[in-house]
Amino acid sequence: MKASQFFISTLKEAPAEAEVVSQKLMMRAGYIKRLGAGIYTYMPIGLRVIRKVENVIREEMVRAGAVELLMPVVQPAELWQESGRWDKMGPEMLRVKDRHDRDFILQPTSEEVITDIARQELRSYRQLPRNFFHIQTKFRDERRPRFGVMRGREFTMKDAYSFDRNAEAAVKSYEAMYAAYCRIFERLGLTYRAVAADTGAIGGALSHEFQVIADTGEDALVYCPTSDYAANIELAEALPLIATRGAATQALVKTPTPGKSTCADVAQLLSIPLERTVKSLVLATDEKTEAGDVTKTTVWLLLVRGDHDLNEVKANKVPGLNQGFRFATVGEIESHFGTKPGYLGPVGLKQPVKIVADRTVANMSDFVVGANEVDFHITGVNWGRDLPEPDLVADLRNVVEGDPSPDGKGVLAIQRGIEVGHVFNLGTVYSKPLNATYLDENGKPQLMEMGCYGIGVTRILGAAIEQNNDERGIIWPAAMAPFELVLCPIGYDRSADVQAAADKLYGELQALGVDVILDNRGERPGAMFADWELVGVPHRVVLGDRGLKDGQVEYQGRRDAQAESVPLAGIVDFVKAKLGR
Amino acid sequence: MKASQFFISTLKEAPAEAEVVSQKLMMRAGYIKRLGAGIYTYMPIGLRVIRKVENVIREEMVRAGAVELLMPVVQPAELWQESGRWDKMGPEMLRVKDRHDRDFILQPTSEEVITDIARQELRSYRQLPRNFFHIQTKFRDERRPRFGVMRGREFTMKDAYSFDRNAEAAVKSYEAMYAAYCRIFERLGLTYRAVAADTGAIGGALSHEFQVIADTGEDALVYCPTSDYAANIELAEALPLIATRGAATQALVKTPTPGKSTCADVAQLLSIPLERTVKSLVLATDEKTEAGDVTKTTVWLLLVRGDHDLNEVKANKVPGLNQGFRFATVGEIESHFGTKPGYLGPVGLKQPVKIVADRTVANMSDFVVGANEVDFHITGVNWGRDLPEPDLVADLRNVVEGDPSPDGKGVLAIQRGIEVGHVFNLGTVYSKPLNATYLDENGKPQLMEMGCYGIGVTRILGAAIEQNNDERGIIWPAAMAPFELVLCPIGYDRSADVQAAADKLYGELQALGVDVILDNRGERPGAMFADWELVGVPHRVVLGDRGLKDGQVEYQGRRDAQAESVPLAGIVDFVKAKLGR
Repeated sequence: MKASQFFISTLKEAPAEAEVVSQKLMMRAGYIKRLGAGIYTYMPIGLRVIRKVENVIREEMVRAGAVELLMPVVQPAELWQESGRWDKMGPEMLRVKDRHDRDFILQPTSEEVITDIARQELRSYRQLPRNFFHIQTKFRDERRPRFGVMRGREFTMKDAYSFDRNAEAAVKSYEAMYAAYCRIFERLGLTYRAVAADTGAIGGALSHEFQVIADTGEDALVYCPTSDYAANIELAEALPLIATRGAATQALVKTPTPGKSTCADVAQLLSIPLERTVKSLVLATDEKTEAGDVTKTTVWLLLVRGDHDLNEVKANKVPGLNQGFRFATVGEIESHFGTKPGYLGPVGLKQPVKIVADRTVANMSDFVVGANEVDFHITGVNWGRDLPEPDLVADLRNVVEGDPSPDGKGVLAIQRGIEVGHVFNLGTVYSKPLNATYLDENGKPQLMEMGCYGIGVTRILGAAIEQNNDERGIIWPAAMAPFELVLCPIGYDRSADVQAAADKLYGELQALGVDVILDNRGERPGAMFADWELVGVPHRVVLGDRGLKDGQVEYQGRRDAQAESVPLAGIVDFVKAKLGR
Repeated sequence: MKASQFFISTLKEAPAEAEVVSQKLMMRAGYIKRLGAGIYTYMPIGLRVIRKVENVIREEMVRAGAVELLMPVVQPAELWQESGRWDKMGPEMLRVKDRHDRDFILQPTSEEVITDIARQELRSYRQLPRNFFHIQTKFRDERRPRFGVMRGREFTMKDAYSFDRNAEAAVKSYEAMYAAYCRIFERLGLTYRAVAADTGAIGGALSHEFQVIADTGEDALVYCPTSDYAANIELAEALPLIATRGAATQALVKTPTPGKSTCADVAQLLSIPLERTVKSLVLATDEKTEAGDVTKTTVWLLLVRGDHDLNEVKANKVPGLNQGFRFATVGEIESHFGTKPGYLGPVGLKQPVKIVADRTVANMSDFVVGANEVDFHITGVNWGRDLPEPDLVADLRNVVEGDPSPDGKGVLAIQRGIEVGHVFNLGTVYSKPLNATYLDENGKPQLMEMGCYGIGVTRILGAAIEQNNDERGIIWPAAMAPFELVLCPIGYDRSADVQAAADKLYGELQALGVDVILDNRGERPGAMFADWELVGVPHRVVLGDRGLKDGQVEYQGRRDAQAESVPLAGIVDFVKAKLGR
């Protein structure tokens, strides 16, 4: 490719709206152009990267036995009503009515459509296992689109769906996809971690996320450096930090804590460790009629240690809270606790409140809670003596660094990640409502066991840049770079020697299959170099009159501190070695 | 590809809903699967054909200097309001509101988005000419989706957009795209015709359609076999069939024509040629307030010869009708003509009616029209004597076979076609409302001259099949076939010899770059052959124990009446010759 036949457009400054480095660099280097909130045009150079990522994914999916098809973006509501997700999915799912007032959605994923195809096409056990995938435009109407392509609304996703005869075979399909994903992210040159994950709105029993490691990631990844334990913090099990409850040693004392409404402030005022305090969080659940009128509200008090944070995904699994909960209103809090937030506690409650203690809190003794009176806390609190045992004990909190690993093989560490892939073993979550069955060897219909496997194609671009950049711009991993190598002739339009040498080298590299771009735009060297460093091409060869006189050109890798002089006669072999050809 | 790693699924019968042969064959052969009205999943074999078509298009677009990018499917309303198409486009454009109640559309085309990009990116005359294209999902909410992928709602389109300094340069860009389109349809192996076309809702001045010739096509193509004149019937100019008006020779006579309300019936009753009668068509135009209230209605009478048909696209260009017209209501007709449809005419009108005569009608004499009285017509009608000269004379009718060619070089013929491509010289239809300017050599802003160029990727599949099929199924042109050649081993799973020979030949053909599929499904020969004939693979090689004993295999081209025996030792060279390698 010659630059004159392509379209390169860089900016000195990133637009003010850009929040994270990948977004800034993608906009400055001309990879994307914003059309609306979370909606981007991929400019020619951006599309090249997308195609390279797609091709790696496609090759590995096919290698793993998956077959590509193409499902529609606009899908009729009926299938989503059949699966139940029409009601379950929130406003992230964009709904639209056609000219005949019929309901449609823009695909966020395609479980329903592929299950509908499977129930028509896969009739016999002889046709299983089967794995279909497509790479297609998705839309999710994010409440707050941000970070460029990392949390966009319109994006490209590869989604694959496996169909198996039974749960055992489905686990094999899951493992094959897991292995394919590892190969994909390795080939793309990304530092990643696969972590056990919550199954969320997709449903199912077993799931892993593939996370690109980056400090700017939205996800917290929990792992054990001395074992292979790894999980998203949403899922990572927090063991009790106190093995057995100690006996009470202190008397219950009501203590003035004027203006101290957080555990940290109270601990500091009372000169006690934060680990002696307990945080109170008030939730509510509503029973409703079919018409949606609330018939009964239950108030819940969740207790975690003062230095811990509530994990809402875990709260959502507590019996009684797992049909949906909300945070209680100030009115509800005042009517149940007789005081306002900041001074709440589980002792001496006059109104019925369901109390759920985190595993660690359940084993605490002599602890500190709010006194249910403004500007007062109570110390020396003990279960059984000062208040009833909790109604429920559960894992309610996020793990923290240093917690024991759930596999008993060390202590936990935490790093940040960007989710770029997700694999789910779905069981019969979709095949059951859609009645997707096959006939087994005995001619009896059996539900298919399913898996689904997603990769955020466009998000990978952002994640790769978050992981690979410097003050000069993007540093693409080789497999994703829009071009492998840029030829920068100095004075291409002025010097016949430079032009001849550049054109010859360009031809030789092309003949070798190197994805090379020749910058014949006639830019001055400084601007030209800055452009390609911003764009992030991994290898650069500079040709100028001065060097050519001595038969020399200059090579610099994007991560190299300095350029090195290479004889023109040997540059092709030199480049071949650098590219590993 | 081995069939066991792929997905082949054929049906004995086409679903009842399939209306045309391409739709029937695509559904029977497993290319597409219906998800909703005008919405299809492309099954694995269908996606292969799409990718082949896309690649031919992409190669020729790049060869013509266009650069690929990717614009979003979901586009904000603001740009469409800026261009004016938000109001102009009818219900074909699918509109959708996001969670914040903001208006969006699903792209039917992308003129607005690319013009917005151009006005930001193309700032100097040095950056022109420029041509961007993308291949992306489109949605048009057709009132009556039908014919499978030929008039679907969701489809894949390649759309390109050129930007030029002035009208002269824009015509060059237009011609380059025209030439690229010719190469594309030639490479795809389609019999096609480029015809001058109306510019319709896209706007602009100059336009050609690329039409695949097929008897089942929705478009009528007018051409002159002895010149290069070719136009869509919507546009094809109808010359007056009478050079100068003859003198009146008959008296005006009111004649009873009981129950004869069509020109054909009246001509038969009166034993006169149909060419002596004149058809009356009543339209209406409304003047409206901004709020949409009608302040004035004008009734129009359009006259075409009895053997001719009104061309609504032409009527839409008549001064006074070109802001939009409708057919008059029965009430309006009765109040203006004093009678009901079937007996209308331009003679003796009591109410004001604007009369527009087709060019041929304007030169007629002694003609027959309705008497404005039920069961009566009048004969011997003459302009000037019996009624005033028409208010307007215009080309109002469709041409018919045998009409003189507008270029004066012969007579016209008509054939049917399926529109698969359309090129438009847009002028400043979009750059003006969006103020897309560049700075010329003098630093002065100038509007960019635009062109837009579309190819219906998915529709091409249907069009190719309408043109290439027989009673056994599809006959793909070589460039579009999902596979170039199928190897059909008989008893692959039973005979070690067959399996060894098939695997060896498969490897050899793959090494040559032949896109070959080996059918190792274990089907019986009859079912296997029928499948591949239905699927439409152009070349087939059959290997069986009987032939192999004598060192022979069988070759049959999809259009061949019979198979021929070929020595196994020479089959690779034989196939190479057949494929033109």
